[in-house]
Amino acid sequence: MPQITIIGTGLIGGSIGLALKQHGIDDLTIVAHDREPSVASRAVKRGAADRRELNLHSAVKDADLIILATPALAAKETLEYIGGDLTPGTIVTDTCSTKVEILKWAQELLPKEVSFVGGHPMAGREFAGIDAAEANLFVEATYCILPATNASKDAVNTITNMVSLLGARHYFIDPAEHDSYVAAVSHLPIALSTTLVNIAAKSNAWREMGQIAATGFRDVTRLASGDPTMSRDIYLTNTQAITYWIDAFVQELTAFREKVAKGDPDIENLFTQAMEYRDLWLAKRLEDTEIPIEIPTASENIASMFVGSRMVSRLKDVDPRQQEQKQKSNFFRRS
Amino acid sequence: MPQITIIGTGLIGGSIGLALKQHGIDDLTIVAHDREPSVASRAVKRGAADRRELNLHSAVKDADLIILATPALAAKETLEYIGGDLTPGTIVTDTCSTKVEILKWAQELLPKEVSFVGGHPMAGREFAGIDAAEANLFVEATYCILPATNASKDAVNTITNMVSLLGARHYFIDPAEHDSYVAAVSHLPIALSTTLVNIAAKSNAWREMGQIAATGFRDVTRLASGDPTMSRDIYLTNTQAITYWIDAFVQELTAFREKVAKGDPDIENLFTQAMEYRDLWLAKRLEDTEIPIEIPTASENIASMFVGSRMVSRLKDVDPRQQEQKQKSNFFRRS
Repeated sequence: MPQITIIGTGLIGGSIGLALKQHGIDDLTIVAHDREPSVASRAVKRGAADRRELNLHSAVKDADLIILATPALAAKETLEYIGGDLTPGTIVTDTCSTKVEILKWAQELLPKEVSFVGGHPMAGREFAGIDAAEANLFVEATYCILPATNASKDAVNTITNMVSLLGARHYFIDPAEHDSYVAAVSHLPIALSTTLVNIAAKSNAWREMGQIAATGFRDVTRLASGDPTMSRDIYLTNTQAITYWIDAFVQELTAFREKVAKGDPDIENLFTQAMEYRDLWLAKRLEDTEIPIEIPTASENIASMFVGSRMVSRLKDVDPRQQEQKQKSNFFRRS
Repeated sequence: MPQITIIGTGLIGGSIGLALKQHGIDDLTIVAHDREPSVASRAVKRGAADRRELNLHSAVKDADLIILATPALAAKETLEYIGGDLTPGTIVTDTCSTKVEILKWAQELLPKEVSFVGGHPMAGREFAGIDAAEANLFVEATYCILPATNASKDAVNTITNMVSLLGARHYFIDPAEHDSYVAAVSHLPIALSTTLVNIAAKSNAWREMGQIAATGFRDVTRLASGDPTMSRDIYLTNTQAITYWIDAFVQELTAFREKVAKGDPDIENLFTQAMEYRDLWLAKRLEDTEIPIEIPTASENIASMFVGSRMVSRLKDVDPRQQEQKQKSNFFRRS
């Protein structure tokens, strides 16, 4: 009986559980573990898992697939804690926002016969926590996949299939490139949202300002409502790339400020340029959603793809669908 | 037959027209004028106005209420152009995002017997233009009202009543305070969105970054998709307050960057602080929406409140509802 264990059942872990459960995969058991037992209970109550397991060793020892959906530093501690419990063929994935460090830790802390396939779903919501989790969180999202060098092909296929079941598009990327890119488009924006809230709210006039602050302020500050521990861990595990992008931002903003101070009407070009870049980006996103995501439907087929490499190994020499599936996966891969 | 003329029928002007038209006010004519004749035609087609008037002088000469819904510098040009056309008792309002300058211009350029009542609806959408206009854009929004010193009480009442008809909450505020506050919560965020898009999109890796940029990037950059001319005019008419807030932002972000570079785990406190400030702000916003907005319903009553001070003057000595209405208006005023 295949088992998936989700460690950390907040917004991301809870949403993965909800999305997988809605496919009604035969015999699959999803086990929830969270540092806060009440959060794991809530995940079970919301239908994101079949049962809660308080003991972390027990939670992972029979798992075919382990999904680490905690902040980065807690993921490291978890790998330290469970490394000795895992049997050959187990697949471990994660959902952390930074990837270079977690891949290093996985190499150091997991047995060689365990396949680590890093993951990063590019999706989120305004608020963190299990109550914000939803089955369709990942629909049409880009889901970065970063296999460790020793990860088996079957393990990689299992994760790409999981990503398809979530309704997301998998995207293979180098860990260093990943961390550098998300520093610009995901981590720097957290600093901007946070800093904007903090300077406005510390002002003597915040009461009046808050009265007239509207949807623009709400949207630009959205990322300030994320989980502070997750943000801290992002910043502590991607320091170099983030400080590079903060510096680039300050430099550009300072140049812009000088033009404003001089009353230079050319600032309109900067607004126009940004509008055009952004509109093109949005159009491209929309276009991407028109490429269908192929979701495996036959329950048997799903089970064969999804139970981890132990069962997959038994099947792969006899099942031509393995090869077919690999081709399907490649179809969605962006070059 | 009362007439309202909307000059500039983009997102804001168009939405005001749509919101007012849905009340079906007896005999009221809404006239649309836009620098782009096709935009005014589109406003008529969308039901935001009864007819288009190409000639600006003709558009305003019989108007009881003129709504300037253009970028700030175009509003100045318009006041220069129409000042001589207006008869005593006409009410002029605007929707510009900066208020000190427009109030100065109104004083210089309008006859003393014309009442200027500045306005600033704290509402917007991701995209500009008449096609983005919607009748419920202002529902539950704060709508700043800033009467010129010579504005009649009846003119001020007309505008507060218009604001109620839009479903918004009026908020009286001093122009200098307004410009200082919106610099922090509305204008600075435009610079942050714009700068973030520009540095990311100019990067060599933008193609890959754009692929993994997700809803966080989309929301934090939302204001970069606003009308560039409107943004330019905001920055050219509120320079001092905006540069003050850019400096405060750069200072705070730089201090934050130093903590990040040192790997200081205390950065978590900054994330927590911002989350708490923002959550309190959101809760307060939600609480405010629970105070009902009283919208006048009787068509006759609306007409008496709404046709400008000429008709109001004729009514006010005989109509006890005028006094009653004033009390209602004060009820919603925040101290």
